[in-house]
Amino acid sequence: MSANPYERNLDKNDANFVQLTPLSLLRRTAKVHPNRTAIIHGELRRTWLETETRCRRLASALQKRGLGVGDTVALMAPNIPEHIEATLAVPMIGAVLNSVNIRLDARAIAFILNHGEAKLLLTDREFSGVIAEALELAEKKPIVIDIDDALAHGGELIGEATYEDLLAEGDPDFVYTGPDDEWDAITLNYTSGTTGDPKGVVYSHRGAYLNAIGNAITWSLPHYPVHLWTLPMFHCNGWCLPWTITGMAGTHVCLRRVEAKAIFEAIVAHKVTHLSGAPIVMSFLINAPDEVTSALDHPVKMMTAGAAPPAAVIGAIEQLGFEVIHTYGLTEVYGPSVVCEWTPEWNELPADERAKLKGRQGVEYALQERLTVMDPDTMEEVPADGKTIGEIMIRGNIVMKGYLKNPKTTEKSFAGGWFHSGDLAVMHPNNYVEIKDRSKDIIISGGENISSIEVEGVLYKHPAIQAAAVVARPDEKWGETPCAFVELKPGASVEAEDIIQFCRDNLAKFKCPRHVVFVELPKTSTGKIQKFVLRERARQV
Amino acid sequence: MSANPYERNLDKNDANFVQLTPLSLLRRTAKVHPNRTAIIHGELRRTWLETETRCRRLASALQKRGLGVGDTVALMAPNIPEHIEATLAVPMIGAVLNSVNIRLDARAIAFILNHGEAKLLLTDREFSGVIAEALELAEKKPIVIDIDDALAHGGELIGEATYEDLLAEGDPDFVYTGPDDEWDAITLNYTSGTTGDPKGVVYSHRGAYLNAIGNAITWSLPHYPVHLWTLPMFHCNGWCLPWTITGMAGTHVCLRRVEAKAIFEAIVAHKVTHLSGAPIVMSFLINAPDEVTSALDHPVKMMTAGAAPPAAVIGAIEQLGFEVIHTYGLTEVYGPSVVCEWTPEWNELPADERAKLKGRQGVEYALQERLTVMDPDTMEEVPADGKTIGEIMIRGNIVMKGYLKNPKTTEKSFAGGWFHSGDLAVMHPNNYVEIKDRSKDIIISGGENISSIEVEGVLYKHPAIQAAAVVARPDEKWGETPCAFVELKPGASVEAEDIIQFCRDNLAKFKCPRHVVFVELPKTSTGKIQKFVLRERARQV
Repeated sequence: MSANPYERNLDKNDANFVQLTPLSLLRRTAKVHPNRTAIIHGELRRTWLETETRCRRLASALQKRGLGVGDTVALMAPNIPEHIEATLAVPMIGAVLNSVNIRLDARAIAFILNHGEAKLLLTDREFSGVIAEALELAEKKPIVIDIDDALAHGGELIGEATYEDLLAEGDPDFVYTGPDDEWDAITLNYTSGTTGDPKGVVYSHRGAYLNAIGNAITWSLPHYPVHLWTLPMFHCNGWCLPWTITGMAGTHVCLRRVEAKAIFEAIVAHKVTHLSGAPIVMSFLINAPDEVTSALDHPVKMMTAGAAPPAAVIGAIEQLGFEVIHTYGLTEVYGPSVVCEWTPEWNELPADERAKLKGRQGVEYALQERLTVMDPDTMEEVPADGKTIGEIMIRGNIVMKGYLKNPKTTEKSFAGGWFHSGDLAVMHPNNYVEIKDRSKDIIISGGENISSIEVEGVLYKHPAIQAAAVVARPDEKWGETPCAFVELKPGASVEAEDIIQFCRDNLAKFKCPRHVVFVELPKTSTGKIQKFVLRERARQV
Repeated sequence: MSANPYERNLDKNDANFVQLTPLSLLRRTAKVHPNRTAIIHGELRRTWLETETRCRRLASALQKRGLGVGDTVALMAPNIPEHIEATLAVPMIGAVLNSVNIRLDARAIAFILNHGEAKLLLTDREFSGVIAEALELAEKKPIVIDIDDALAHGGELIGEATYEDLLAEGDPDFVYTGPDDEWDAITLNYTSGTTGDPKGVVYSHRGAYLNAIGNAITWSLPHYPVHLWTLPMFHCNGWCLPWTITGMAGTHVCLRRVEAKAIFEAIVAHKVTHLSGAPIVMSFLINAPDEVTSALDHPVKMMTAGAAPPAAVIGAIEQLGFEVIHTYGLTEVYGPSVVCEWTPEWNELPADERAKLKGRQGVEYALQERLTVMDPDTMEEVPADGKTIGEIMIRGNIVMKGYLKNPKTTEKSFAGGWFHSGDLAVMHPNNYVEIKDRSKDIIISGGENISSIEVEGVLYKHPAIQAAAVVARPDEKWGETPCAFVELKPGASVEAEDIIQFCRDNLAKFKCPRHVVFVELPKTSTGKIQKFVLRERARQV
């Protein structure tokens, strides 16, 4: 018998211990607010009870089709109701949702279907072309189910059943419980990393639950938020916001295409209180014509992530009536889990001081455990002097389980007991982090990550090219676009347009360089290409 | 090798798994908001960095005194800074805080010190009398440390050191980590149950963390709330709000005595945004003279728990400028974890409909898992018809580990995998719960639970009394007070005043009957006293 009285007869049991899972948020909302509007999509309205019932049907149908714990369900869809349903329903049977970036090309999609071992694919009609091509390339063919969204443009039905057919197979009274272990996988999200092949980031029920709640705490969410989906749900599961909004018994306003007019119309029509998205969404909003923006009749809160928006952008969007919260994160930490937490006292500071503070990525979410900047070699924290550069390191429950079938990279990314973000930053004296550079050469264009190494890989395949380096070029609309610097083989000759076309034949369009510059590449004495020189030159192009 | 790819090389490690604990909330707030005001007490102001440093000192000093994992630290104090510090610091070394009800008498305190095996007692000077007496009765003497609060009235220093002396022994740079296991005990809270001896309810780090966050979600807490302590921190660890307010980087405004004038003065002086307390606090506020209430210059949110406040009370307090949220809970579920969640549409209903809805205890917190009403014999849910009475059952992570050293009662209270609340209720068609009666005969007076059985136990010791039954009598000020019905022994004679005095000699004052009625007790055919008859009669007294 333990000498510690607290270790005797005080064990976990069914009454006092339940595995954490976002499924609990759905269950509660459907029970407590069955008749509130869960989903708006065009003319469609569904309540929480209807939504939960459809989720039960979907889970049950998947189970009847033979899927279960650890099976991957892939999804190719924009921000439509079925995307929300899949995010809530697939985990009900212990299966893992893999929502695929809809801007990817067939080759990348095929890689993901193969690597993720998708047993079933839910795919929106509009993407039938690229999906059919990807399925040709895929080694094992998943069951294909078509989502025949009334608002989709074009495309064909290429699967063996429609989504509604599938739901009809399912039991509306299917009983869902949480996972056997909150550490079990809930979703799989592929990220473009430093290599050409995407890496499969695995989330757990525990992490998804805690970041869903973390979003609500960070954003001081009220009950019943009305959230407009201007952020792709395939990005880190919509930053876990599908679960957050569900838990707050809010309303999901769907949007197939992120366009300024549609955004403003939806905000007014549905009394939208919150939206989220990459800085590109802010550009859309700011640059909309006056007759579109003038309709806005109530304040809206917006969460953005990534590069700190310039002061002018913040000023312009706040002028329109949006209150912006600036966050930072990566796929590996469930999307945003760092926030530039504002304090009311800072409003008293002069404008340039405020802009400086707003330029910082900030501090860990209240539910993330630790954020720091370290020398990755010594794993010692850099001084909080706003000058010493180190790597952003994160530790907590809102950090991925690891990369699927990639133990080596997983181990490396967790070396020393911290997640290595790959972002270089300083720690300011107020303990706020500010990114200074990326150690991985990622270009962020319109909110999408582009691996410069992947693009370089394609360029190197071009018969005329001897060496190539791709860097980010600042772009007013897209944030950044890829700019290629190439050295031709002796005697070779080619036009920039040909190279761009070559890339388009081999890459998703958004990854292709917008500019190609012919140069002798600047190198270090050891032969390493000096990208920082090229980044400077790209600004002048 | 598992066939499930998600079970391979995706294990927990230091980077992606951290034990849940409220200590993380303190760490983050002290890091991110070191200079914000953490605590206000009279003229005293302390920042979060100062508060965290004092907590580090306290934890370190306790460790140096030999305390560690599973050791109990008892605390006898009103709502003063040291109470907050102990709540945050004692768990830093894995020790367990046992905050004792300051209204208890020496005998009950001695029982608690013995049963909880307190190794050290922190005690406010004002309570030196009753504590000295309790220590006389205690079997093992804990180390006694005096809290010499400048605002305390009277009392003596009876310990071997003062709290400030103890802090001086501690290391201000003491490094605290979370528990080895989030299931570890964090606090011990004694509740008066159905028997005379209090039961020791044990909370875990995990549960405390989740309810701290749950409070913020339920109350839609903004960042930096200013919380006035009108709720005793010894009640379920102040409903977990010490951790909530800490996590939101808020300000704790202390208050030794809950008096209307002091409350209104504090609200105005410190721009209090939130307060909490039993319905008795609402009475204080409503019945304050106009010259006191008229000073209120901004809206304040109030959380109350327990019996639903009558419509007139809600109306009057809202008139004053308080927005009330009504919750329900028990010590066993970390204080409130059920809430009468209001929806904006209900504001359109006629007043009597609204009052009916407000009278319901409501629904589970978003972070509590399950709330239902069951027949305790069959463990089947009652129909949601608003009529069928059953027992409120709760399941989730915000349910105690169990009762300390009381496996039999623990097992009974968790029978069938649900926590049996002992409260009888109906489930309404909208899935909101409403309490109809208590199966345990608890009287709630001024927010304190009084066990009728404990009072009866004393009455039965009186030489003139043959039989006794104690029930709640509605009271405008206290909510309820104990009313005793007694049958005298043949030929015996005694005055009501003598019986009340006898109770005062043997019970804490607040537990003593205010009224004594001499009757022949109504009994069932099997000889069981019909308390429902007495409850009716008590209303007429």
